Amino acid sequence: MREVAIIGIGQTVVDEHWDRSLRDLAGEAVFSALQDAGRETVEGVFVGNMLSGMLSRQENLGALVADWTGMQGIEAYKVEAACASGAAALRTALMAVSSGEMDSAIALGVEKMAETKASETTAALATAADAEYESDQGLSFVAINALVMQRYLYEYGWKHTDFAGFSINAHANAVHNSFARLQEAITEEDYRRARMISAPINLLDASPTGDGAAALLLVPAAALRPGTPAILIAGSAAATDSLAVHARRDPLWLAAAEKSTQRAYAQARVSPQDIDVFELHDAFSIMSALSLEAAGFAERGQGPRLALEGELGPKGRVPISTRGGLKARGHPVGATGIYQVLEVVQQLREQAGPTQVPEARIGMAQNIGGSGASIFTHILRRA
Amino acid sequence: MREVAIIGIGQTVVDEHWDRSLRDLAGEAVFSALQDAGRETVEGVFVGNMLSGMLSRQENLGALVADWTGMQGIEAYKVEAACASGAAALRTALMAVSSGEMDSAIALGVEKMAETKASETTAALATAADAEYESDQGLSFVAINALVMQRYLYEYGWKHTDFAGFSINAHANAVHNSFARLQEAITEEDYRRARMISAPINLLDASPTGDGAAALLLVPAAALRPGTPAILIAGSAAATDSLAVHARRDPLWLAAAEKSTQRAYAQARVSPQDIDVFELHDAFSIMSALSLEAAGFAERGQGPRLALEGELGPKGRVPISTRGGLKARGHPVGATGIYQVLEVVQQLREQAGPTQVPEARIGMAQNIGGSGASIFTHILRRA
Repeated sequence: MREVAIIGIGQTVVDEHWDRSLRDLAGEAVFSALQDAGRETVEGVFVGNMLSGMLSRQENLGALVADWTGMQGIEAYKVEAACASGAAALRTALMAVSSGEMDSAIALGVEKMAETKASETTAALATAADAEYESDQGLSFVAINALVMQRYLYEYGWKHTDFAGFSINAHANAVHNSFARLQEAITEEDYRRARMISAPINLLDASPTGDGAAALLLVPAAALRPGTPAILIAGSAAATDSLAVHARRDPLWLAAAEKSTQRAYAQARVSPQDIDVFELHDAFSIMSALSLEAAGFAERGQGPRLALEGELGPKGRVPISTRGGLKARGHPVGATGIYQVLEVVQQLREQAGPTQVPEARIGMAQNIGGSGASIFTHILRRA
Repeated sequence: MREVAIIGIGQTVVDEHWDRSLRDLAGEAVFSALQDAGRETVEGVFVGNMLSGMLSRQENLGALVADWTGMQGIEAYKVEAACASGAAALRTALMAVSSGEMDSAIALGVEKMAETKASETTAALATAADAEYESDQGLSFVAINALVMQRYLYEYGWKHTDFAGFSINAHANAVHNSFARLQEAITEEDYRRARMISAPINLLDASPTGDGAAALLLVPAAALRPGTPAILIAGSAAATDSLAVHARRDPLWLAAAEKSTQRAYAQARVSPQDIDVFELHDAFSIMSALSLEAAGFAERGQGPRLALEGELGPKGRVPISTRGGLKARGHPVGATGIYQVLEVVQQLREQAGPTQVPEARIGMAQNIGGSGASIFTHILRRA
């Protein structure tokens, strides 16, 4: 198995791009990544996307993107794992290059959510949950997370406001990311007063969806010119859990996060204290707490403590959501996993501006599909 | 890159399974493949599927299938390339094993098409074409193929009835396949009298869709016990073409089929005359002709000649659709690519009964997504 490096990154602003289609967004990210890497083409494109069939009436995105970007003929297909589709596409591109099947590949994430009624988007997102046991009972995706958060508050005795730090940190960081959807700071007062969506989740616990595309260009590490600054993929692992939350032994424990993180740590030969930056899947603030616990940064039930102690900022003990996270950069679902890894690359390249984590050498990204059902963890290392 | 073998196969009957859901069909195929291989679990499941979000309101199929089959925790995700989703899932499973990421994987194809109105299925299938330049203009998927066939008749001077042999052969073979949807022979008279769907394509030029699931279990060839009869994956390649047919230099030439076939031939070190059985993508009879030409079995424009000369049967020069093909086994779109490879395995194991190709040692399967936009070719070899 060959070691693989990321040598190019590209992204679009996350926003409601009413005037732009899937291919247009995808093209911008792909061309940016090619330009960043100083290349004109690659041998394969693997497209992470969840909703194109339902919301844009377009499948076969691999051929669409290869065609639109002038790379007709190359291998290309779509990969889906709900909101973890981006990381699943990266896994696929990684295996394509590490196996020797090809010498260059792009992992692309693209999502177009703003071309229909909001109710249709909500219904489409519910397909990430168990259709027969959750969605058909009227549970929307936010409602499932609300039940989890409610139980968490009850079991561990936290107050809702104890979660404010997650959202405040994400928004503070997004102010300095020109690709973020919500480039504005929020206060604890804003958080407390935010409109309730599905109790106890309020508007500032939830990430905004959006349209966006992001791309990573992968090559074998051995192909790098000596002296080229490179970011290596040191760990990559995926795990699943039961699709329906009620079927889990402990609905407050992300078993798939624990499994995939442990595998990735072992591959990279690191432990939590070696991770300088952690881009986690803060689709809802409760998910930040659960991810920190499952990945070994906090004791079970103690995730909010890191927020309360102010340890999550770029200069803190466990920097998370350093470019805004899902909460403020935005959550174009099938693209999110690529944005996360791209942001870790920016940190390791020291291109993160005012939210740069000092001396960042090892970073981790974790992408979650469904309510903890499909979890992918990637660890990157500055060469 | 490690050599990979297929040691287990499983499938469901292709039919309108009104009483069975996606997970139920998937489970039957997975359990059959595990049993066939004498295994209880695998490290990864890669699910080929096109329509689950649109027709069953269910995405995140990787977690769904891992969960339902009692393999919670393993890596699993969905792969999509329209009607070539099955072969794309096989590519992914192959790369997972050949790269060393895992030592066993299942490539699963599953599709559930019979749970909604036929018009919705037709609309969902149209997402395989270019939404902005084809589907939005009112072109259904069969209509695109009809335009291609019409042009082919005009350019090369064939009559519609010259294509009868493709469908007659497929149906004759399906009679002996208990997993086929249409286990009934047809005559040339039936073909001539079949109801027109989209001129010049009539009902017996077109494959029936259906519900079904099929699975292949892959392990490194080096892990095989000595003496175990094994089927090796000797070639695997994918290529794309422009998504919209009108954008191609020659709409009557499957450039992506030519590219992926040539790559697979080179990997397997074979040429067309070495292929003992060819499971091609006969979604429409015109596609059989175009595939035979692009894969080097017929001159350009001369595909129908093989049908007219009766060379396509199991004892013929170029045996195709030996278990019924898409035309008569049925076309559960995202599962089809796995059914094709499974049928090649049956031939190489000499388990094909009355339609056994004598002394079959090398077989090829070709799966097409969209109207020639995404084409995957696999070559298998009896060890």
